[in-house]
Amino acid sequence: MLVCRYSDGGRRGYGRVDDDHVVPADYDRDTRRWVRRSGPARPISEVTVLAPAEPTKVVCIALNHGTGRPADPASTAVVLKPPSSLTGPWTSIGHPGRPWLLKHEAELAIVIGTRCKKVLPAHAEEVVAGYTCANDITAYAHPQDGGAPAGDLVWAKHFDGCTPLGPWLATDLDVADAEITCSVDGAIRQRGSTRELRTPVHDVIALVSEHMTLLPGDVILTGTPAGSGPLPPGSRVEVAIEGIGALCNTIDEPSGAAREPDAAGSERERSFTP
Amino acid sequence: MLVCRYSDGGRRGYGRVDDDHVVPADYDRDTRRWVRRSGPARPISEVTVLAPAEPTKVVCIALNHGTGRPADPASTAVVLKPPSSLTGPWTSIGHPGRPWLLKHEAELAIVIGTRCKKVLPAHAEEVVAGYTCANDITAYAHPQDGGAPAGDLVWAKHFDGCTPLGPWLATDLDVADAEITCSVDGAIRQRGSTRELRTPVHDVIALVSEHMTLLPGDVILTGTPAGSGPLPPGSRVEVAIEGIGALCNTIDEPSGAAREPDAAGSERERSFTP
Repeated sequence: MLVCRYSDGGRRGYGRVDDDHVVPADYDRDTRRWVRRSGPARPISEVTVLAPAEPTKVVCIALNHGTGRPADPASTAVVLKPPSSLTGPWTSIGHPGRPWLLKHEAELAIVIGTRCKKVLPAHAEEVVAGYTCANDITAYAHPQDGGAPAGDLVWAKHFDGCTPLGPWLATDLDVADAEITCSVDGAIRQRGSTRELRTPVHDVIALVSEHMTLLPGDVILTGTPAGSGPLPPGSRVEVAIEGIGALCNTIDEPSGAAREPDAAGSERERSFTP
Repeated sequence: MLVCRYSDGGRRGYGRVDDDHVVPADYDRDTRRWVRRSGPARPISEVTVLAPAEPTKVVCIALNHGTGRPADPASTAVVLKPPSSLTGPWTSIGHPGRPWLLKHEAELAIVIGTRCKKVLPAHAEEVVAGYTCANDITAYAHPQDGGAPAGDLVWAKHFDGCTPLGPWLATDLDVADAEITCSVDGAIRQRGSTRELRTPVHDVIALVSEHMTLLPGDVILTGTPAGSGPLPPGSRVEVAIEGIGALCNTIDEPSGAAREPDAAGSERERSFTP
């Protein structure tokens, strides 16, 4: 089954994707299943499809694709992104401008359905509400372009919009061998499979939940295949996973002119509202 | 004014600290002030004082104390902790056990009151609900003890309980020069002041909000003075900031025997509940 989150005339909720319609649904934490809720089926073309999760945290597993010794838990880096970085499918993402370079990272995302801690790999599937496509967009500061000094790479995973998620959840995905691809402007840049994960999907849930309580809606990004590369302004990026679908986004031109680092603040818009 | 968050017979809310009583209060986002809400004043000794924030993200600024060139925004590392890492004052924190070593990091915490982005330093104070003490406890994997290979330091900021916050918010703190100390079992381990911050408090808010939307309750940890050191099981750690108060916590013995990394999972409790 495929489940999306959507906005319909300002009301937000989840729904089962049924051909070209969405049928209202809720995740039932007792039975751990998606069940029909009241409300009319709606054509997908008439609603706004949103990122299919409302997490308290987005957890990234670093360096999890490829060969080499199996990862051991204490040397696996766990990095977090904020919920404010989420965006849905088919949105435009604002490029932060100089000195930042954006790079795509196509990943399988796990969406948690049940509050849990210290989950055994054999029971991991029971705490999952569904799987979706993620683009773990990461910003690197260019040393030669006003960023960090050479040899002192700074990267950032906190920018608004840097975590596109979607287009929907697959509730019954075989995560042992799902193909992941990423293309930029139609050219394939990454191709891999979850069978290459050093820490496989169910072990990732065990690892992440060993010392950290996971809450319903929390998102885990399981790592990206080789080939992460630049996303210049104007580019169109698509992450596709077999059994789920394709997550497409475009990168906007930076808003406003580039600023010298020492002038930071002087040209800032005062955009907060009480 | 000092404001705490507390639980009273299961009901949770905020309140003004008035000598040894707490008087119910709410943050009013229109006037950006804490205002009296209905309900009786209660003796602090009869309620449970909680971490004084309910963030969607906890943002840490790395390497912000001490001398050296002023930090430039693009080489300042922004790291996140999950809301599930928060704990209140006077709690016990479970040590994760081998191969992890816990270290204390005493910091001034900013609690955001207003949704904001691209805030100018001159307007930063307007988006702050209050300031409090934080212990940005960080776990390091010991290479010699089953952790990462030598030279491949792994640290983690995601463990449950690794972000004690409190005991209350100060709403009118002078953040230009507030003394921060950390003591372990009564011995001073860190001593510094916010006047030593390479990126000062209001510039931290500008930096963090430049590309990331901040939401009410979000927490920013502004960096720790020199002297971060180990917190073995059984130790008692206190972070004190002039004008706020003292945040005390103890470190519990690890629960369960140490496990070999390759046996991870086999002894795990299945502790999630539907």
